[in-house]
Amino acid sequence: MVLFFVTGNEGKFREVSALAARFGVELRHSRTPYLEIQADSLSDIARVGAQQAFGLLKAPCFVEDSGLFISSLRGFPGPYSKYVFLTIGNRGVLKLMEGVEDRRAVFRSCVGYCGRDGRPLTFEGKAEGRISTEERGRGGFGFDPIFVPDEGDGRTFAEMSVEEKNALSHRGKAVEGFFRWYLLHKEE
Amino acid sequence: MVLFFVTGNEGKFREVSALAARFGVELRHSRTPYLEIQADSLSDIARVGAQQAFGLLKAPCFVEDSGLFISSLRGFPGPYSKYVFLTIGNRGVLKLMEGVEDRRAVFRSCVGYCGRDGRPLTFEGKAEGRISTEERGRGGFGFDPIFVPDEGDGRTFAEMSVEEKNALSHRGKAVEGFFRWYLLHKEE
Repeated sequence: MVLFFVTGNEGKFREVSALAARFGVELRHSRTPYLEIQADSLSDIARVGAQQAFGLLKAPCFVEDSGLFISSLRGFPGPYSKYVFLTIGNRGVLKLMEGVEDRRAVFRSCVGYCGRDGRPLTFEGKAEGRISTEERGRGGFGFDPIFVPDEGDGRTFAEMSVEEKNALSHRGKAVEGFFRWYLLHKEE
Repeated sequence: MVLFFVTGNEGKFREVSALAARFGVELRHSRTPYLEIQADSLSDIARVGAQQAFGLLKAPCFVEDSGLFISSLRGFPGPYSKYVFLTIGNRGVLKLMEGVEDRRAVFRSCVGYCGRDGRPLTFEGKAEGRISTEERGRGGFGFDPIFVPDEGDGRTFAEMSVEEKNALSHRGKAVEGFFRWYLLHKEE
């Protein structure tokens, strides 16, 4: 059975399809735009998004929402990371962090899945780390060049290959949890 | 006939009820939480919000969405102004603007109204101005202490009375446009 990943973000699709290949999940890319709600919780956004996408595609599908939550900035940019990235970008975030000692941050991801019963399920993942003092690396996308995961070796996400990033990242963990569930429960 | 203004923001209600009194519009406050979508356009957010609120209240009602768009920050914080205010606040925005010469900004407001026909209408207003170099004043709410409207005398919105601010503000203009329409078209 075909499973749609609904996203307009090519970087996300690249990462998720690498994981799908590893798990033997047959993935299709849909760029159908679906309504995203404003909420402080990624799981609310992903749950409603999955239902919206299912209503449009009429086929089992999932969406993924993620955000960077910086401790000393009370969780900014959080669920609005995409907009903040497109406006003030990595440089803006580095400027906000100038002279700030507490550089702890968490990248959070939530997958929302909706199958034929119309009831959405969510799967979460997180990566704890720190905001670097300068941009490093050209891989990944978004805030990857300024995020150094605690589980890594000091490189930013943007300095890693897709496989290295997937092994440590919030998205890798959320998607892996979802694929494990999906392979046990998928509708034939 | 009663008209509901649906908002969880007491500052907004204070401003809008001062205008309602001036126009002779009978206003009721509803704090019913309604779904807000993520969109780069305030009018999309207000339109969907008004429909959502009407669906919950089953009575003619309006919502108001607003945002501060700073030119040199590519429109940041824009439609996500509330979240940005609650996280990095005025101080964060002033930090992002340190050393920035182009301080132009626009406050935009959009009223979304939904009457018994279920078709939402929108009314817009804007106030052009500049980001100050420090916070000034204790009135208003949100980014008012750092916004100096071009039409004013150099004071920030937070240094004005509700009436002074309403005469110059994005919200005052959007709501006034809506009230003028409403008084001609309201359903008895």
